[in-house]
Formats: sequence, C-alpha cells, structure tokens
Amino acid sequence: MQLARMIDLARGSGTVDLVIRNCRVVNVLSGEIHQADVGIADGIFLGFGVYEGKREYDAGGRFLLPGLVEGHIHIESTLLTPPGFAQAVAEHGTAAVVCDPHEIANVLGRVGVEYMLRSSHNLPVSIFFMFPSCVPATALEDSGARLSSVDVEHFLRLYPDRILGLAEMMNFPGVLAGDEGVLSKLKAATDKVIDGHAPLLSGMDLNGYVLAGPRSDHECSNLSEAMEKLRAGMHLMMREGSLERNMEDLLGVVNDFNSQNISIVTDDRNVLDLRENGHLDYGLRRAVALGMDPLRAVQMVSINPARYFGLNGYGAIGPGFRANCFLVDDLKDFNIHEVFLNGLLLEEHVFESGNGLPVRNSMHVGTEIDESMFAPEKGSGKIRVIGTSHGQLLTENLVMEPLLENGVPVADPARDVCKLTVIERHRATGSHATGFVRGLWLSQGAIAGTVAHDSHNLIVAGMNDADMVLAAREVVRMGGGFAVVRDGCVLATLPLPVAGLMSDKGLAEVSDGVRELDRATGELGCSYNPFMLISFLALPVIPSLKLTDRGLVDVDTFGFTGLWTD
Amino acid sequence: MQLARMIDLARGSGTVDLVIRNCRVVNVLSGEIHQADVGIADGIFLGFGVYEGKREYDAGGRFLLPGLVEGHIHIESTLLTPPGFAQAVAEHGTAAVVCDPHEIANVLGRVGVEYMLRSSHNLPVSIFFMFPSCVPATALEDSGARLSSVDVEHFLRLYPDRILGLAEMMNFPGVLAGDEGVLSKLKAATDKVIDGHAPLLSGMDLNGYVLAGPRSDHECSNLSEAMEKLRAGMHLMMREGSLERNMEDLLGVVNDFNSQNISIVTDDRNVLDLRENGHLDYGLRRAVALGMDPLRAVQMVSINPARYFGLNGYGAIGPGFRANCFLVDDLKDFNIHEVFLNGLLLEEHVFESGNGLPVRNSMHVGTEIDESMFAPEKGSGKIRVIGTSHGQLLTENLVMEPLLENGVPVADPARDVCKLTVIERHRATGSHATGFVRGLWLSQGAIAGTVAHDSHNLIVAGMNDADMVLAAREVVRMGGGFAVVRDGCVLATLPLPVAGLMSDKGLAEVSDGVRELDRATGELGCSYNPFMLISFLALPVIPSLKLTDRGLVDVDTFGFTGLWTD
Repeated sequence: MQLARMIDLARGSGTVDLVIRNCRVVNVLSGEIHQADVGIADGIFLGFGVYEGKREYDAGGRFLLPGLVEGHIHIESTLLTPPGFAQAVAEHGTAAVVCDPHEIANVLGRVGVEYMLRSSHNLPVSIFFMFPSCVPATALEDSGARLSSVDVEHFLRLYPDRILGLAEMMNFPGVLAGDEGVLSKLKAATDKVIDGHAPLLSGMDLNGYVLAGPRSDHECSNLSEAMEKLRAGMHLMMREGSLERNMEDLLGVVNDFNSQNISIVTDDRNVLDLRENGHLDYGLRRAVALGMDPLRAVQMVSINPARYFGLNGYGAIGPGFRANCFLVDDLKDFNIHEVFLNGLLLEEHVFESGNGLPVRNSMHVGTEIDESMFAPEKGSGKIRVIGTSHGQLLTENLVMEPLLENGVPVADPARDVCKLTVIERHRATGSHATGFVRGLWLSQGAIAGTVAHDSHNLIVAGMNDADMVLAAREVVRMGGGFAVVRDGCVLATLPLPVAGLMSDKGLAEVSDGVRELDRATGELGCSYNPFMLISFLALPVIPSLKLTDRGLVDVDTFGFTGLWTD
Repeated sequence: MQLARMIDLARGSGTVDLVIRNCRVVNVLSGEIHQADVGIADGIFLGFGVYEGKREYDAGGRFLLPGLVEGHIHIESTLLTPPGFAQAVAEHGTAAVVCDPHEIANVLGRVGVEYMLRSSHNLPVSIFFMFPSCVPATALEDSGARLSSVDVEHFLRLYPDRILGLAEMMNFPGVLAGDEGVLSKLKAATDKVIDGHAPLLSGMDLNGYVLAGPRSDHECSNLSEAMEKLRAGMHLMMREGSLERNMEDLLGVVNDFNSQNISIVTDDRNVLDLRENGHLDYGLRRAVALGMDPLRAVQMVSINPARYFGLNGYGAIGPGFRANCFLVDDLKDFNIHEVFLNGLLLEEHVFESGNGLPVRNSMHVGTEIDESMFAPEKGSGKIRVIGTSHGQLLTENLVMEPLLENGVPVADPARDVCKLTVIERHRATGSHATGFVRGLWLSQGAIAGTVAHDSHNLIVAGMNDADMVLAAREVVRMGGGFAVVRDGCVLATLPLPVAGLMSDKGLAEVSDGVRELDRATGELGCSYNPFMLISFLALPVIPSLKLTDRGLVDVDTFGFTGLWTD
C-alpha cells in the first residue's frame, strides 16, 4: 500500500483491515501495560486509537503481547523442516526466528543452507539466518561439507535481508590463536551480527574473543560467567532449551539497568517439548515462575533479541511494526487465546514451501552394508569404552576388560556395554569405525540414526551385529532417519528424508513418530530416548571419549586413540 | 593493527599502549559499577584485566565513564566551527556527536553540509550527521538553498558512515498531509535513522507520523506527551539545552523497563553555557540532582543514543569499543579529572580542520545598504507590532498606535517599540521588509546579526535608521556576525565569517566576544542578550507574528499580513 494511504489510515481516515479491541497491551517500548484498541492495515500495526475495521476482534480485556522473537535455535533439531517448524511455533506466539542451519550445513554445505533459505521464504513466521561458522566442527571426522570465509562473504552478500551475520563461533580456541581461516570468517562478517559460543571462557581470553567480533553468548551456565560476559559487552542469551536449561542459574544476573542486553533463547527444542510445552511461551512461563517481572520477561523474547539482531519491525506493538501479536489470558500461565501474524489470524495462514533442491538424497554410504563394517579393530588386553550417563553430554574414558567371542570383543549386556559404529554417509568414502559404549541401557537389538552431531554420519548402537546391520540398512533405505530393530525385526522407524535430519511431516506426525521410537527402544530396555544420547557420541568437541567415522577420539588430547589400551 | 595482534594484546600477551589502573568503571552494559584496570591499544579498549602498558595511568579509584554521546545538536548554534566545538565539548567528556547542520544548510545548501562534513573529518571527537530534512523551513522566506529528496539520496549514498539518516522532520503537517516532496525524503532515508520533531503531536496523528518513519522526538514538554511517544515506539530525547529545558518535566516518564529508549540531548547549547556549565556532563549533574540513578543517567548520554543511532563502538567501555572515556571524582558533581579520546589524553590531541570550501563569503546583499531599506511600508491607522517577552519564542500579534515622524512610523523608546528589518543576504535579491517589535528593551542605538532562524538573513533592530544602517553595514563588512552600534559608533562586534553563523575562533575567544556583545547591548538598555531573541523573530513556524525578508507573517494563518491594520 502507498505510504500516503497508510498514513491516512493510521490517522483514522478510512476503514482499516482489522481492529483488535479492548486489549491490555504489553508495551515493551514504554515499559507499561495499557488499555487500547489496535488498528492494523496491510499486515502492519497502525497504532492505538479509535479505529473502524473491516473486521473487529474483541479481545475481552486479555493481554496483547508482541509476536515473539527466537534469537538462537537450530531448526533441524526439532526434526521438522522450516515450514513444519514455523507452523508449530506460530501456535505458541512466535513470529520471528533467527536460526543457525549448522546441522544441514554439515551434511549438504551450501545446498543445505540454500534449502533452509528457500523452504522458509515468505512463511507467516519470519525465519532469519546466521551463517554457520564452523563447518566441519573438527578435522577429526568426515562431514558432508566444508564452508570457508568465501562462503560467508558470498551468502552475506547474496541474502543481506535474510542472513543477519555469522552464527555461533564455537571455535574459540581458533579465534584466540588467531587462526587465519577463522579470522577471515569473522572479517567477512564485520558490520554484521556475530554470535558467540564460548562456554566458561573468561578473563583476558574472553577479552580477546569479544574483541575479535562475537557479541553474544548462549552458553553461560553460572552467574559470574554471565555477569562477566555482560560486562564485556556481550548480549546474554539465557538458554532454556530441551537439553540445556540455564535460566534458573542465570536469573540473578538481571538488574534494572542491564535487562535490555538479555534475551531468552532455546538453542535446541525437541519436537515433543514443542508439542507439549511450547516454545518461547514456555520460557515466559518459566521466567515468571522463577520470579521475573512479566513485562521484563516479554521484553527478553521480543524487543531485546529483535534489537540485538537489528530486526526493525519485529518485537513490539506500535505504528509501523509488523502486525504480529497474540492474546493471553494472564501473565502467569500465558495461555494463548489467539495468534495474529501479519495482521491475519493464525488459521488463515498456510505454511507451505516449494523447493527443488536435492536434499532428499543425502545417504551415500557406497557399498551395501554388511557385518564387516561392524568389526572392531584387532588387538589384545583391555579396551577403551565410552562411558555415558543420562542427561550428560560429557562422557568418561573408561578402560574395561572386553567380553570376547572368538577373540573379538562384543557387546556385553551384563555390564551394559553396547557396540557403537559410525559410518561415513556423505561421500561414500567407506570410512567407518567401531567402539563400545557403556550406559545406553540397551539390553538387546540395535538402533541406528543419521542425527549425530556435528557431521551427522550414520551412527549405530547394538547388542548384536545382525540387528546393527538391519538397523543401518533400514536407515539407508529410508534415506535417513531413525530405526529400532530386535531379533531381525524392525520395531519402529522415523524417516528423516530431508538431509537425514528432518521429516517432511508436521508436528503431530513427527512427535507421534518419536513416541513410537520411545516405545520401541523401551522394549530394548531403555527408559528414555537413546537417540538423543547417541547423537552426541560422535561429537569430538565435548570431553572425554568420542567415536567418529575415523576412530575413537580422546577429546582431552584432541587426537585419535586406539580401541586397545596396549 | 592486525586483528590477530590485537587479540594477543587483549589476552595479555605483550605490552599495551595504555593501562588505566584502579578505576571504578561505570559499566553501562552490565549495569553495575565495578573495580577494574582497563587495557587500551591502537585507540581501542581491550578489556578489563591485568595489563602491562607502555604508559600507565593511576585513576586513584575515580569513576571511569564512557565518552559521552550527543544525540541531537545544531553545532552552528554554538557559534563555533566543528573543530572549535569538538575541542570545547571534549573537555566535558563528549566523544561523539550527532548533529543536524540545518542552519548552514539553509545558508549554503549542499556546500554547507559538505563544509561541516569536511571540517569535522577525523577530529578526536567523532562527529556524525543527520541530513537536514526541511530546507527551507517555509515558503514564506528566502533562504540560501533548497534541499530535496535527491540531495538526501545523494548524501546518504556518498557518506554512509558519517550521515546516519534524516534529521528532525519538522514538517509534520506535510507528513500527515502526505506531501509528496516530504514523503520522498522519508523514503530516501528508509533503512536509515529518521529523527522526528513534532511538539505536542498526539493521538492518531502521532500514529500517522511515526508510521511514516520518524522514530525519535526531542520536543516533548510534558509527561503524558512523552509517555505517548514512547508507547508509539519513539526514542525519547529529553532536551536540556541552553534555551529549552525539558528534563525536569519529563523525568517522571522513566521506569525500570523503558529507560533504554531515552536519551538526554541538548539540541542547542550556547557558547557561554558550554564554557561555564559544560555539555552533556551538565545534563548528568542535572539528572542526578533531580533524583535519577547516576548509572541510568550515564546510560542516557552514552549507550542509549549510541544504540539508537547504530553507532557501534561508541558509548561503552569494553573490548572492541573505541577508547573514549573520562574520570570523575564522584557521580553527583561529575567533576572531570581527565579525558581520554581514542586512547590518548585530551591534551595530546589537536583539533584542526582543513577545508577549501567557499563558506567565508556568504554575504550577498547586492547594493550598498542605505536608509531606504529600513523604510516601513506606507499606510495609515494602527500598526501590527511583534510582542516579545524574554525567554519566550512565542510572540504576540499586537496592534498599536504608531509613533509618526513626517507621517512615517518610527521606533518609540517610551513604549519599548523598536524597528526591525530583515534583509535577504544569500542571493542579492534585494528583498527586505520592515516592521516593529516591542519588548527588546533597546532604548537607543541598533543591533544587527546574521543568525536568524531558519533562513539566517540579515536582521537589524534599532531605535534610529542611521545606527541601523551602520550596524547592518558593519555585519556585511565582517562577512557576517553580530554588531552593536550607538550614535554612529560601533560598540562591539563578533565576526562570524563562516556562513555568517560561526566564528573561526575557539571557545574562549568566542565566549569573550559574546560577553563583550552583552556588555555593549547592556549600554543600549538590554539586561540580557537580545541577539538570541531577534534570532527567532524571523522564524515563521512559531506563533504568532514574525517578520521575514518578504514581510510580516501571521503564523496562525501561515500567510503574510500588512504592517497596517486598515
């Protein structure tokens, strides 16, 4: 619409598209809650006042909140594609999302990022991007792609409105060492937003890191760390995800003078959590339950992240902002009564995407999978075993007597030791490695999956080779996903045909699928979801012992180590 | 310096340029005051920590504040050129200034803006610009230039790093009416910052104005106006200048959730005030005296305006920020102990500018000035007289019996009525007009000046034509400035050779000159500075009766009116 016409409408001349009457506006700009009617035209808020609308919606005195803004999430970890994800979070009041397509970038590189951009183009929920900074995460594994500063420059130039900057710079040792490749990525993103990721980094090393460019951190786990990072000028993203929950430990950092520098983010949100507990609305409930003023909590999931990322037009209700908002019954439970996106009711929107990119054929393991790929290296003496415990990403570097069959170590249900194999799946290099893990609680059968941070190779855990072969083959057949197998039978599968990371189905179907996997792994002895746990067993940046397609990694020395201790 | 080297230094490897030891840092980012040593290299803060410096400065436990940021000022109104101004405010802790060169733009157009840009280039105080939006201010006067949306586009493209956007859009009636020229200027500045200027605008008209683009206001004079503008998403610039002082009336608007959207600005600061009371440090003192928390007050003259304008690297002390800071003894009087700019002591800086632009020859009045130019129009009956009172920009539209000499109305000391003449000085059009003003307190002689908002024509007030001619000629001879004349003698002058608006001398000399003018006008009967008052008598946007070079303007009807009422 012409600006002159919009000005006229804002001034009350003419009939606007929609009036939301009788709201209590949670105004994150003036820092108050005030009664108002809100006029909307052309998907834009006109302001507060006496408007006449083609449609009028009586809010019944409910609280009107601005559409929420997610500052840091990996959409792939929901197992949903951008349209499916957008639809799922829209119901929870989310209107804009800044995501880091780090997972798909590790599988498909540029094509993966392009897919995420195209499949999220013009959705009712605005999806923005940070360009992945660390692909591959390490040199100790085979990922599907390698992204350099040339890619950073290329994408930032090509998509100035959708890619806001450089995603979480996890390689803080590289930054501190002045690594040329790392610094060139930071330089390519100068004048853009650069997100940080530096757990427990402090003191003068933190100075060096912040000076280099990163201006946010979502890894803080304690108060003094959070305050030090705020002092150094970082935007503090308090993480309250499915896996990592830091809010309770960090709330004490908030004072009357610094809260504009703090957002609440999720980082990772699994599909069951999305369905059952919500998205950022969950963060709101939790923050208020922990004692935060509701207005401040709302600012932390709206205007604060919007301003940090320079997202003009998002995160507030006022003239010229996009007409994203939602009604809640109170500021404690935040029960959502109605959601408006771009001036329309949520149910009036469609969440569709068209894309012609080759993201559905990401399984490239070469030859047919057989038992030979699951054979551990030969040796004698004791073996190294990855020790896991539930809910912990850290593993132990255990040394155990192996259980031998014909001189070859095998799984040992009596001691909860399971075989673990990682098979390269991106370029059919044939690279694969086998080790052992304790603590998965599998007593029989096998599970296989293609979600395995950060390279997302095919990872298989099992108590016997035949089931491991079947589980792996089943996943290859599906073009990626999860499979649960016992005694030669496939108990459950969840296909993830999009890059082996995401389903093409919606929230309900995917979360039902996850429940089905849970049920099946329960039959194998697990009382929790073991796919989450194995998805971190190939990530060689979290101590102490991990397995990639190239072999066992001693993370503490950041090098390979043998299965046998002798 | 190479980034890798800076990272090393920040991490404590090597000797940095300067360490400021033993400070209490007023940290506007974390919202606390904390003890620290601060490392600096290459003009950049490295961070807090244990640094070794080539130079070390013991702060003796004093408070370290970030260099202050002025969000809205017209430098010309100080009568100082950018280098002189920068030097004057640097002593008061100011490190960055966003100015609107509206005055010189009305005199010299593009050349004037270029002059301001060039003469402020690379000064120790960073000078940023907003491109003037309303030149000329009205069609009822002859200014020296006319700037259109083409100029806006041109300058924004040419100086993306120095011109931050469009300056105060004073023509809010034009915005609301959808005036094409006005809207095209706003459109040219889309994605840039657009400052507003809309005194008392409220309700749905305010919605229309904000929707059109302006996102700040420095004209608020009461609480409810300020709160309404915050609600609508405007950045509130609380003005505490030499002329207009709104802070006391507006402080009540500040709460714990909105202060990040509020700055303290000066708008206009005269040279005596600068010298005697300071710049933004005065605003700090005043805010704290009025009860504001000192940390919050500091935020309002540092990080808040820096963020509003997107000035990364300004307004805070932390890794990567420019090393602008100053030490004060306490957070009440803010007595300044030492100023650091770009990592150097203030006294190590030079404030020089070179420019070859034709800004020194701005007086173009055509023919020699003689008494004929001071003759009022002929008529009979009563005359309209501009009624002024001190400290008020509003004037009254008085109707009085004229004092006649040979049938011609003349000045009338008995009733404090003085003759007032405005002479076009930009294009030698010969345009001039004469009226009468009551309330100047001139009892004899004449004064003349080239500061007369917004067109800055030559304005002369006097009790007899001979002195008026002499005063006007003296100003023309100086190439612009102020002159005070009595009985054929020049009592005092202050040359303003730069566009007739600014002196090429420094703070001390110019403020001495102003005092000299005060002394001289005191001899004519004034107990205050009448030049400030006459500088607004030609501004036809403030009611009720004004005089431009084209004649008397009835501001209430926004049209010309005759001297005679009949």
